[in-house]
Amino acid sequence: MSDKDRQAEPARSRHRAGFGQRPPVGAMPGTLMRDPDAQQTQVRIVCYGPDRIEEIPFQGPQSLPQLLDSWAVTWIAVSGLRDVELIAELGNVLGLHELALEDAVSSQQRPKVENYDDYTFVVTQAPRWNPVHDGDAADLEHVSEQIAIFFSRAFVLTVKAGEGGRFDAIRERLYKQRGRVRKAGPGHLVYAMLDIVIDEYFPVVEHLGEKLEALEADIMRNPDREVVVRIQQMRRSLLAMRRAIWPQREVVYALAREGMPHVGRKTRIYLRDCADHLTQLIEMTEMYRELTTGLLDIYLSSASARTNEVMRVLTIIATIFIPLGTVAGIYGMNFDPQVSPWNMPELSWYYGYPYAIGLMATMAGAMLFYFWRKGWLGGRDPARLLQDD
Amino acid sequence: MSDKDRQAEPARSRHRAGFGQRPPVGAMPGTLMRDPDAQQTQVRIVCYGPDRIEEIPFQGPQSLPQLLDSWAVTWIAVSGLRDVELIAELGNVLGLHELALEDAVSSQQRPKVENYDDYTFVVTQAPRWNPVHDGDAADLEHVSEQIAIFFSRAFVLTVKAGEGGRFDAIRERLYKQRGRVRKAGPGHLVYAMLDIVIDEYFPVVEHLGEKLEALEADIMRNPDREVVVRIQQMRRSLLAMRRAIWPQREVVYALAREGMPHVGRKTRIYLRDCADHLTQLIEMTEMYRELTTGLLDIYLSSASARTNEVMRVLTIIATIFIPLGTVAGIYGMNFDPQVSPWNMPELSWYYGYPYAIGLMATMAGAMLFYFWRKGWLGGRDPARLLQDD
Amino acid sequence: MSDKDRQAEPARSRHRAGFGQRPPVGAMPGTLMRDPDAQQTQVRIVCYGPDRIEEIPFQGPQSLPQLLDSWAVTWIAVSGLRDVELIAELGNVLGLHELALEDAVSSQQRPKVENYDDYTFVVTQAPRWNPVHDGDAADLEHVSEQIAIFFSRAFVLTVKAGEGGRFDAIRERLYKQRGRVRKAGPGHLVYAMLDIVIDEYFPVVEHLGEKLEALEADIMRNPDREVVVRIQQMRRSLLAMRRAIWPQREVVYALAREGMPHVGRKTRIYLRDCADHLTQLIEMTEMYRELTTGLLDIYLSSASARTNEVMRVLTIIATIFIPLGTVAGIYGMNFDPQVSPWNMPELSWYYGYPYAIGLMATMAGAMLFYFWRKGWLGGRDPARLLQDD
Amino acid sequence: MSDKDRQAEPARSRHRAGFGQRPPVGAMPGTLMRDPDAQQTQVRIVCYGPDRIEEIPFQGPQSLPQLLDSWAVTWIAVSGLRDVELIAELGNVLGLHELALEDAVSSQQRPKVENYDDYTFVVTQAPRWNPVHDGDAADLEHVSEQIAIFFSRAFVLTVKAGEGGRFDAIRERLYKQRGRVRKAGPGHLVYAMLDIVIDEYFPVVEHLGEKLEALEADIMRNPDREVVVRIQQMRRSLLAMRRAIWPQREVVYALAREGMPHVGRKTRIYLRDCADHLTQLIEMTEMYRELTTGLLDIYLSSASARTNEVMRVLTIIATIFIPLGTVAGIYGMNFDPQVSPWNMPELSWYYGYPYAIGLMATMAGAMLFYFWRKGWLGGRDPARLLQDD
Amino acid sequence: MSDKDRQAEPARSRHRAGFGQRPPVGAMPGTLMRDPDAQQTQVRIVCYGPDRIEEIPFQGPQSLPQLLDSWAVTWIAVSGLRDVELIAELGNVLGLHELALEDAVSSQQRPKVENYDDYTFVVTQAPRWNPVHDGDAADLEHVSEQIAIFFSRAFVLTVKAGEGGRFDAIRERLYKQRGRVRKAGPGHLVYAMLDIVIDEYFPVVEHLGEKLEALEADIMRNPDREVVVRIQQMRRSLLAMRRAIWPQREVVYALAREGMPHVGRKTRIYLRDCADHLTQLIEMTEMYRELTTGLLDIYLSSASARTNEVMRVLTIIATIFIPLGTVAGIYGMNFDPQVSPWNMPELSWYYGYPYAIGLMATMAGAMLFYFWRKGWLGGRDPARLLQDD
Repeated sequence: MSDKDRQAEPARSRHRAGFGQRPPVGAMPGTLMRDPDAQQTQVRIVCYGPDRIEEIPFQGPQSLPQLLDSWAVTWIAVSGLRDVELIAELGNVLGLHELALEDAVSSQQRPKVENYDDYTFVVTQAPRWNPVHDGDAADLEHVSEQIAIFFSRAFVLTVKAGEGGRFDAIRERLYKQRGRVRKAGPGHLVYAMLDIVIDEYFPVVEHLGEKLEALEADIMRNPDREVVVRIQQMRRSLLAMRRAIWPQREVVYALAREGMPHVGRKTRIYLRDCADHLTQLIEMTEMYRELTTGLLDIYLSSASARTNEVMRVLTIIATIFIPLGTVAGIYGMNFDPQVSPWNMPELSWYYGYPYAIGLMATMAGAMLFYFWRKGWLGGRDPARLLQDD
Repeated sequence: MSDKDRQAEPARSRHRAGFGQRPPVGAMPGTLMRDPDAQQTQVRIVCYGPDRIEEIPFQGPQSLPQLLDSWAVTWIAVSGLRDVELIAELGNVLGLHELALEDAVSSQQRPKVENYDDYTFVVTQAPRWNPVHDGDAADLEHVSEQIAIFFSRAFVLTVKAGEGGRFDAIRERLYKQRGRVRKAGPGHLVYAMLDIVIDEYFPVVEHLGEKLEALEADIMRNPDREVVVRIQQMRRSLLAMRRAIWPQREVVYALAREGMPHVGRKTRIYLRDCADHLTQLIEMTEMYRELTTGLLDIYLSSASARTNEVMRVLTIIATIFIPLGTVAGIYGMNFDPQVSPWNMPELSWYYGYPYAIGLMATMAGAMLFYFWRKGWLGGRDPARLLQDD
Repeated sequence: MSDKDRQAEPARSRHRAGFGQRPPVGAMPGTLMRDPDAQQTQVRIVCYGPDRIEEIPFQGPQSLPQLLDSWAVTWIAVSGLRDVELIAELGNVLGLHELALEDAVSSQQRPKVENYDDYTFVVTQAPRWNPVHDGDAADLEHVSEQIAIFFSRAFVLTVKAGEGGRFDAIRERLYKQRGRVRKAGPGHLVYAMLDIVIDEYFPVVEHLGEKLEALEADIMRNPDREVVVRIQQMRRSLLAMRRAIWPQREVVYALAREGMPHVGRKTRIYLRDCADHLTQLIEMTEMYRELTTGLLDIYLSSASARTNEVMRVLTIIATIFIPLGTVAGIYGMNFDPQVSPWNMPELSWYYGYPYAIGLMATMAGAMLFYFWRKGWLGGRDPARLLQDD
Repeated sequence: MSDKDRQAEPARSRHRAGFGQRPPVGAMPGTLMRDPDAQQTQVRIVCYGPDRIEEIPFQGPQSLPQLLDSWAVTWIAVSGLRDVELIAELGNVLGLHELALEDAVSSQQRPKVENYDDYTFVVTQAPRWNPVHDGDAADLEHVSEQIAIFFSRAFVLTVKAGEGGRFDAIRERLYKQRGRVRKAGPGHLVYAMLDIVIDEYFPVVEHLGEKLEALEADIMRNPDREVVVRIQQMRRSLLAMRRAIWPQREVVYALAREGMPHVGRKTRIYLRDCADHLTQLIEMTEMYRELTTGLLDIYLSSASARTNEVMRVLTIIATIFIPLGTVAGIYGMNFDPQVSPWNMPELSWYYGYPYAIGLMATMAGAMLFYFWRKGWLGGRDPARLLQDD
Repeated sequence: MSDKDRQAEPARSRHRAGFGQRPPVGAMPGTLMRDPDAQQTQVRIVCYGPDRIEEIPFQGPQSLPQLLDSWAVTWIAVSGLRDVELIAELGNVLGLHELALEDAVSSQQRPKVENYDDYTFVVTQAPRWNPVHDGDAADLEHVSEQIAIFFSRAFVLTVKAGEGGRFDAIRERLYKQRGRVRKAGPGHLVYAMLDIVIDEYFPVVEHLGEKLEALEADIMRNPDREVVVRIQQMRRSLLAMRRAIWPQREVVYALAREGMPHVGRKTRIYLRDCADHLTQLIEMTEMYRELTTGLLDIYLSSASARTNEVMRVLTIIATIFIPLGTVAGIYGMNFDPQVSPWNMPELSWYYGYPYAIGLMATMAGAMLFYFWRKGWLGGRDPARLLQDD
């Protein structure tokens, strides 16, 4: 049995969190993996130029070259990854590199831009809401959906795993000739897609901010141990968010750089605007991360204030009653008063018992006064325990 | 129901902290959002050249081209964002890009500089005092007011949400022909505005420094649990301050760079001076951040010293009285002295009771001496608890 | 005795963790160290061109020049480092530098690329599973195996310490003419090797991720002190992983840079894909490192919650029973009821004893009510101790 | 009341820690602020060339141009900032920029270098000892004194707030023609000044190092709560020191850069030496900062060891005496031995009392043995509390 | 008394830790300080070329120019710094800069490379073992010895404070013509020296690694408070090591850079190898630093586990015996059973005493069962305290 085989085994039998579907170690690069759980593949084609626009039914990959010749821009939208052969053939007809196709079909690529000779390959990750408990807005979770975009002088090919009309608004605008989208070529169409993807991150980051504030309030009111787990989850979410957003900014900056083919000078101004939005998102995320660090400090000091309160009650009760018990114990001693006048004469005093009770009350009172001066009698508010003497 | 709709919903229904007013996801870029709560739009025009200066009443956007031709510099000051159509028309007449106008009208842009063909677009954030409890100086809070500045060879257009004469001092100087402002073109006017904005940050940062010192003093005197919340607030303020100031420095450096259009060589020296001020502000902010980290350490050690004091009192009382109680308990046992001379003969001693009391006093004294040697009898000063043996 | 000798001594007599076999201080650079424990040296030669491929038995270093002349690519695979003279002679025949050979033979070099005049020298570190307790998947440990690669226009020489067919999949592909490997020259062969090495890291990093999750679960369930040791081990593993992966990325980037000799333009695209995989690995590792930091916080808060529970039980028992004991002590005092009616008349009451027991029960009940209101009676769940009043 | 006025108010009425004297917000840039507490202005002029040197009495700014023409180097030393008009006139005669003059006169500028057309402007901060408690070397405090230097081909103008002969050694060397100072032009004179300023930092940083060591020793011996405050002060001092030294290095590197006007090639070698000294200072400061972080750990573990000692004493006393008290309590019960032979027959045993005392002694002994095995009887050394079982 | 004098005083009277001997503030740059404790100066000259090699007795600085003319390489090794005049004269004859000489003679310069016109100046720091307690290998301490190297086309001058044959191995190799040293000119000789210096760091760093492991083991077994001090010492050692090694890498990279005079192209390959070794050293040091941070966490959790154990014992004893004491106290009350049948009828029960003892045993048993379920009866292993319920 070879080295390779021994090593590949554990990898195959386990869940690959966050890495998506990978071909086995040693597989040929450029292999398109077929995922049996993938959604049905659908292809939708919209062709447009400055003057006209038309949605054309997909008649197989071989019909594309003719469309590319007749229209200014052909947008081929592939959703669902089950039919990898079809996607491979599409890539073949459009002259796409096997590695880029592999990335487009695998589901957890990092956002990136790659320039090939005739086309540019962009990967982006769009957020998607995933309700954890149905109907409870506070438990929405964010997951990523990968969108791969190939674009050249004449076409835009988008590949994504899920169905759904994330880009319907763009199609609408194309039809109504709103905006520059229709005049400005494939680069501007790609910008419009990235703009929508980035705008979708704002509610996600805002949602994290709200969860952070709720967490902070909870910690102040109720410093439960489970709070630390929520802080760790918050940290995990913010790390995931950061991992999603940072490389997107590199993507947008790369597309906005002078000399990027198929991106017009005017479109660059729009991409710069996208980059501004990403910077805002990053700043919010980083700020949340720093504030998350502070939460643990608040929790720990709250928990320690609780411990102090327990200590305080124990101290007050014990230090008041233990001396009283001792006094009572003394007058419970069995020294024989008849042997000598020195032996516990108090026991025969007329006011002996009231005197003993009075002694105890005085001791308890002195203690209470001492604790009151220390500020340890702050009632139910644990914070008061620490208020000054 | 499409993907996009499902996702946009939660975003719309919630408060967008720190992001300002954003158009909905999928809206056309360059859309100017009308905010019903915005202040009434006012336009004020000052035209000047080296020899003359005049405040000209605003007679609609169409009157601007003629002014631009007749005067060296035309300063159009727009305050209040309610009338977005007017602002859009102004932008149209002056040839401004729709995205820049959108940024000027939305309220929480990052400070930045953008070069367009014929003009430069600058966004800055000015501080503004927001009294939390009226009349109490210690509770002033700082918020940002965005000022958008467009400037070219011939005009300066400023757009801000609030009314008020932040730049009145510049107008005064222009009239009195004090300084270089009047001779030096639009670039110098922009410098003068940034200079005022940056100078306004100094009292804000100083105020934070004073709050930090007050917090440090409070922690030493009274290590309340609520202090941790104030530390978190301080951290939040300093993060916000940093987020406001850092990009401003980039703005000023970008304007001072050689080759920036419409900024004269002499003005660059002045901008360099601005950049120095921003560096000072940044250094103070960073120093405050590092000191804030130390505050938590002080709090935690203060709180733990308090706990130790509670422990000390409990220990002293308990360790003194528990043994005494045991001694009293022993002489309260009911062994029958008549059965044998070994059974509690002390009970019949002539000085039995004084002997028992003396035994207890000796034990208590020995304990007290031990504690005194340990330094645990430090009285009311909790710090003394830890002072050495 | 000279300085040098005195200093070299302790170095020689100790174990050199993580540094591999080094020649003694002052030894001539380029000395090949013979390691008596090294495996038997084996040489395997595969020659191929676009049209034909053959595995040729090794007939001594002197037979190589002829092979290099007759074949497009000659792949010389050396495994086992015992016969250093043979390796030195191979290096001599192929014109390799003595320092590069020394690095190839020593076992713990950092991954790197070095350009020599006629050839390029690459060092990489491949992961290898090391079962700690046989059969228990959770205790696999990762160690590195160094692979040194020399390649030029005509040959690829690989040197590694262990036997085993890590690269058997490549040989297979060469034979079956699958992929570009056979047409694309030595650079592409080197890429194929690096690709396999990098893909082998994924299961290792995933394994660490699983251990991290298991650790997190254990900490929540059972905050054992031994957990801190496991956190430290996790940190150590992640540091080692990082040390292994980071320089690999530099290697791949260096090879993918334009102008690197013997690496074709098409191969560069494949190397870029490798670099993406490494970036993914690095991001996972960094994320695990940040999460590991959070684990300690969870542990500490769990441990402190346990302490609080102990405190709570002590407090409840002590504060309930100490006052009761004091009451009992009072009625155990021996004041003489016959001396005066003030002396403990309760002792002679008809319901005296029930009254005393009732008094005690009332006190205990009041205490319990107080604790219940504080939420300190939360039963067995320690987290409940801290739940609010 | 305008925005500007409302905002400027709080700034004016408060102390501006660390920012020096600033003109009010909105003031014209380049305004020289007159400080009524400033020292009397004195001007001292030394002219020299390779062959001759002369100290020339100051006869007003208008006499300078003639001196500049007749001498190779004219050194104009201004100390005391009260007469701002005189300084303004000097600047005017020498052609200095109003902003540079403003910086020279205000007291807390960051060290920097600025190139103007005909001259270079340097700001440096020299350390100055400030005794906190007179005569106690351990309480010297370091404050900064700003020195502004203008230099061109022909003159060096130094402006500082305090009197005193910081640069007397340079004058001496000039007279004795020691060193290159006299031959080498204004640049070398500036170097000589910076060299003295930097050398003066060494004792300051060394002093901080000694305070750090003293603090570490104190923490080990006496982990007082006040120690945390001293750690915070140390942190503050190191931050201030860092803020003073880092920009100085930039200054020296900028001056040593090729192409800096008025600095000769030979002087650059000397400036490089200065930069080395600054690097040493920075490394010491950074090392002290890292060690300061460790101090808090030492303090916290010392304080927690103290708490543990208190706990230990409480535990030993309570766990020994509480069981004894219970035994005593049992034999103090009043069960009637006459009712049955089961009712406390021990009370009538011949050796009943010795048996009870013996039982107690055995229990106490067993406890002590248990504690001794645990190592909790470590005597007075608190560290021993934690020594192993 | 001038400013300068007042300030220089404290500096002179104190120990200058880590800064070496510095001339007083204000001294002329380039002054060579004579240190009365320095070792006797010795000069040893070896001249060689490809064909011959000879050790030539030193006959004064004036004899050098002739040697430089007649031999390919002249190596002048100066050890011991007492005779500064001789060193100054040597520098004079070889045309060395006064500042470089000053650095060579002072003992704590940072490693660096400086290019002068005709020669290059290198400072390196070699490690040296300093036994703290004789004979105990675990207490070796590392200190630095500075070696200053001047080299040009024709000579290598080494200056170091201590005697001893650190470079004897090089002399041997030169004589035996082993390696390239003799053919390759002064640059290769300098490389050989640096190679030895760097190799000597490996045992030092390994020694730190072993101390770290020993420390980790000790913390687990015996979490003594003194451990924190050892952690701080470890941190200090690693900081010092880092300070020594980082700049060495800059030195080696600078020498290996293309265009460095007097360093041959072939030697550059060897220097690159040196740089690899330094990178290994740096990585180990950084890893040790990160692991040191983790040690404190282990210590703190161990110490807190100990405290918990103390708490546990107190809790068990107190919560078992306090209730028993209360029961005993109740039956010690003196209510008069003759007054009513309600007054303590148990006292007259036939099995009253066994009943009371049984009640107590039941309570104790219930408590013990509760603690056993909580897992608090874990015996002697403190870790078990925290094991789950």
